[in-house]
Amino acid sequence: MAAGHAMKAIDATTDVITVAPADPESRLHDDHHDALRLWLRLLTCTELVERQVRARLRERFALTLPRFDLMAQLERYPEGLKMGELSRRLMVTGGNVTGLTDQLVAEGLVARQPIEGDRRAHAVQLTAKGRRAFVAMAAEHERWIVELFGGLTAAEREQLHGLLGRLKAGLREREDVARDATA
Amino acid sequence: MAAGHAMKAIDATTDVITVAPADPESRLHDDHHDALRLWLRLLTCTELVERQVRARLRERFALTLPRFDLMAQLERYPEGLKMGELSRRLMVTGGNVTGLTDQLVAEGLVARQPIEGDRRAHAVQLTAKGRRAFVAMAAEHERWIVELFGGLTAAEREQLHGLLGRLKAGLREREDVARDATA
Repeated sequence: MAAGHAMKAIDATTDVITVAPADPESRLHDDHHDALRLWLRLLTCTELVERQVRARLRERFALTLPRFDLMAQLERYPEGLKMGELSRRLMVTGGNVTGLTDQLVAEGLVARQPIEGDRRAHAVQLTAKGRRAFVAMAAEHERWIVELFGGLTAAEREQLHGLLGRLKAGLREREDVARDATA
Repeated sequence: MAAGHAMKAIDATTDVITVAPADPESRLHDDHHDALRLWLRLLTCTELVERQVRARLRERFALTLPRFDLMAQLERYPEGLKMGELSRRLMVTGGNVTGLTDQLVAEGLVARQPIEGDRRAHAVQLTAKGRRAFVAMAAEHERWIVELFGGLTAAEREQLHGLLGRLKAGLREREDVARDATA
């Protein structure tokens, strides 16, 4: 068949998935276009890395990937983010972000601050404790990624980075065209 | 920051997300390891393709990506799949798969069949109508992928496929080591 998207509808609060030996590439027929083969391989690699990171975060820090991602977003914005903005950046529904934030607030890792001039909105920020915790986890996360990509030489990583850069540029162009067409 | 996983906690039944101009690469600091840069670029490309496919499925077929993925799994197994197996392959919870399946059954695209020798289980199959509908959509999906990867020449696609193959082999090895260590 011609598809290959893994459904990533993992509950954002509990982050529970069954780790399956799913591999989108195994779904290919002989007559499929090489672009489809390439896409399914790209998807497979992304899924394999995410699966490893997810397992390690859970094992090492008892942390879910959505919580890590939420803290990672906040780390970039010391002044905090509004809930709507956070939801948009994480591509999750508001309800999920609220649930995640509530947990992190209860653990003292994140705080809600009133926003001056907007009585109905709050900014979500990392607390000092949350920032310390995140910095330690992010360093470990980076080491995992270095290890996971260790099957490639430095030259191969550079080459891959370049090719993906060209792919990304092409994708961005097509996205702009699609946006202009509907505007 | 060192993270870059998009949260994909999109509701599997409604498939509703806000399309955000999120780009994991924009989160990098100057001192991050090139493997992390590579990973975030890989993730960005995967997300850009998925976002396009998601939008087009909705626009062209009023179909969600999780529904497409579910039908794609069934297309490979004419004899049907048990719900648990389907859930495992799609990496979603049983509840989500049940909701998706119920919708598709109501539309006559999918059917539940009793399994001989197992009175409590059902196999889920594509109906003839479902198979026809899927084959048409899959052909269109393949054309989209060809177009989306059109920013690369055939030689570049081949090179990228090869490099990702090496990455995948390395990731599989690491997964096996991790599994053996916990067995």
